Amino acid sequence: MRIVEIVERPARIDSDIRNAWIDFSQMTASTVAVVTDVVRDGQRVIGYGFNSNGRYAAGGLMRERFVPRVLGAPPAALLNDEQTNFDPHRIWALMMSGEKPGGHGERSVAVGTIDMALWDAVAKIERKPLYGLLADRYRGGEADERVWVYAAGGYYQPGKDVRALQDEMRWYLSLGYSTVKIKIGGAPLDEDLRRIEAVIEVLGGDGSRLAVDANGRFDLDTALAYADALAPYGLRWYEEAGDPLDYELQARLGERYPHSTATGENLFSMQDARNLIRYGGMRAGRDVLQFDCALSYGLVEYLRTLDMLREHGWSPRSCVPHGGHQMSLNIAAGLGLGGNESYPGVFQPFGGFAESIPVEDSYVRLPDAPGVGFEEKPALIDLLRKCAA
Amino acid sequence: MRIVEIVERPARIDSDIRNAWIDFSQMTASTVAVVTDVVRDGQRVIGYGFNSNGRYAAGGLMRERFVPRVLGAPPAALLNDEQTNFDPHRIWALMMSGEKPGGHGERSVAVGTIDMALWDAVAKIERKPLYGLLADRYRGGEADERVWVYAAGGYYQPGKDVRALQDEMRWYLSLGYSTVKIKIGGAPLDEDLRRIEAVIEVLGGDGSRLAVDANGRFDLDTALAYADALAPYGLRWYEEAGDPLDYELQARLGERYPHSTATGENLFSMQDARNLIRYGGMRAGRDVLQFDCALSYGLVEYLRTLDMLREHGWSPRSCVPHGGHQMSLNIAAGLGLGGNESYPGVFQPFGGFAESIPVEDSYVRLPDAPGVGFEEKPALIDLLRKCAA
Repeated sequence: MRIVEIVERPARIDSDIRNAWIDFSQMTASTVAVVTDVVRDGQRVIGYGFNSNGRYAAGGLMRERFVPRVLGAPPAALLNDEQTNFDPHRIWALMMSGEKPGGHGERSVAVGTIDMALWDAVAKIERKPLYGLLADRYRGGEADERVWVYAAGGYYQPGKDVRALQDEMRWYLSLGYSTVKIKIGGAPLDEDLRRIEAVIEVLGGDGSRLAVDANGRFDLDTALAYADALAPYGLRWYEEAGDPLDYELQARLGERYPHSTATGENLFSMQDARNLIRYGGMRAGRDVLQFDCALSYGLVEYLRTLDMLREHGWSPRSCVPHGGHQMSLNIAAGLGLGGNESYPGVFQPFGGFAESIPVEDSYVRLPDAPGVGFEEKPALIDLLRKCAA
Repeated sequence: MRIVEIVERPARIDSDIRNAWIDFSQMTASTVAVVTDVVRDGQRVIGYGFNSNGRYAAGGLMRERFVPRVLGAPPAALLNDEQTNFDPHRIWALMMSGEKPGGHGERSVAVGTIDMALWDAVAKIERKPLYGLLADRYRGGEADERVWVYAAGGYYQPGKDVRALQDEMRWYLSLGYSTVKIKIGGAPLDEDLRRIEAVIEVLGGDGSRLAVDANGRFDLDTALAYADALAPYGLRWYEEAGDPLDYELQARLGERYPHSTATGENLFSMQDARNLIRYGGMRAGRDVLQFDCALSYGLVEYLRTLDMLREHGWSPRSCVPHGGHQMSLNIAAGLGLGGNESYPGVFQPFGGFAESIPVEDSYVRLPDAPGVGFEEKPALIDLLRKCAA
């Protein structure tokens, strides 16, 4: 039982949207195929992965360091004790040999993307959907039947006015989502408030069905000015007000803002997540943690982060990962997270879940197919298969 | 006035040494040439840079993202207001366009290495040594005539016994260094103590001439056990006891250990450095900060870090950068840092300073040559020139 090859292929994320920081028209993502010599149902098992939006493709790092370390190891070193399957924990340790501590960015994407493909292969070899495998291994067999999802959109786009924003939100509601998220911080406060009020109108006047996301753009004064202006709306959450590493700003915001805040998508290791918990003044049970395994050394590291959270009195239900991908959806169902992001219609074909399963009342079920379930999204699996072609 | 090309070429750091984390025999470094169309003294000005040891070459990231952003910009956008020279601050902002906040690793090496080459070119265009240019721009013209340096070595190597360690230290003393540093944490505590005592014997019994470096290897209990065992020796400093992002460990260590600690070489942004200052319990005037510009988005970011330090009551004299390269030596002399690391004989040809200037009483002067001074190290400049060949 061995890994025959690990192939990376960069793909463009086709989108003209922008948030408060970046123009996604130049954004790339890595697709990865882990090709094994294991045969299931007459076919060679191939695990797939990709990195979620917001960080660039990491193929150079994979080819220079992480893939050679895996393929250069004795094949038995990649397997579990019983030699019946690959062991993502052991492979993770091999990938990170020769890497110094600290500096968690870029390489965290390279490792996280390969890790996703490994778990896809491992679950396919066990003939289980990944969420079932995770529930069996780490949660006594208990998986959630459905996962709460919300529609993240409301990006700034050239020529997009308030009416177009409302139409976008109505479309999300028609797709089965009841909670939505829009960007803030790419326009002046008064304009953002008009956008927020227009969306709340579409949501039947219920601000708790709307989250807002500043993408780390604000300094302390701006973050607090927005906090004061946002408070009366009773929003679902106020996301990433300041620089992701400015825990002091986050703590000051938590003292001032009475409703939920959310952050974490730009913290890429257990150590960085732990610093948010230690110093960010985040309130267990109220605030939301958005660490994204695909950008953060994968599920192997995410399991460490969940352990750290439990030690600090946090439930996995406080986690609603960034990224809108099926990997986090499986983790949510298998390990009991609070939900998952979704980007209907954008970051295609990466965003979204099994094509045959509709979102209902902002919840989605998972398919029974083995692995992560990429095969249930035809456009995505077509793209991923090009890696291994 | 324009940049004609930016070329990266990876080089092996030829070394069989290891610290508590990594085996340097697999370690690479990027060399970079920024080729301009400016002519000085009959020659085209080329700025050079390289990343210091401990992190890998970053050529893929440079070619995929950072170099195209510079070369794709209108040439005038790279220049100062007077259009008389390149402006590293403006070029930095161009390089970081489309990059989200947080995740400071790898790309910080790519940007830091290009930044080094840019400052080399800028100083050559002004016909000044870089430390003089920095003193003129940022310190009212006052440069230090000489910089305190110490010899960092004492790595673990196969077959290296205490006698060989003592011989290594004697060699550093013969080169003009009076303070030395050795690794700890790659052996059990009692063996490390024997190594320390053997080195102090060579140093005339003066523990304040010896620093020790655990390379982030210890958990809290081990860090404190070493602290208690090290305290009687009165060492120069106890470096990077725990994970570089474990500020809590650092703070607990500072409460327990009565002498100087040092850390920072694995924090790669102003934001990460600020968190160390905010949460690490570091004691201004006693503890030592080792941020390395070549791994941390370059001098442009380092200037932000120095500003942050001043706001928190820290002097630049508390900074003794990691890396042992001439770039930090210039920053030390030009901006008034506390000193600079040196690796006599290892990480060649990158380590060390101008060949014609000896170290005396652990201080070194800088050459008058324009730029960083790479041309004063024949083996290094030969290697760097291959980039632009």
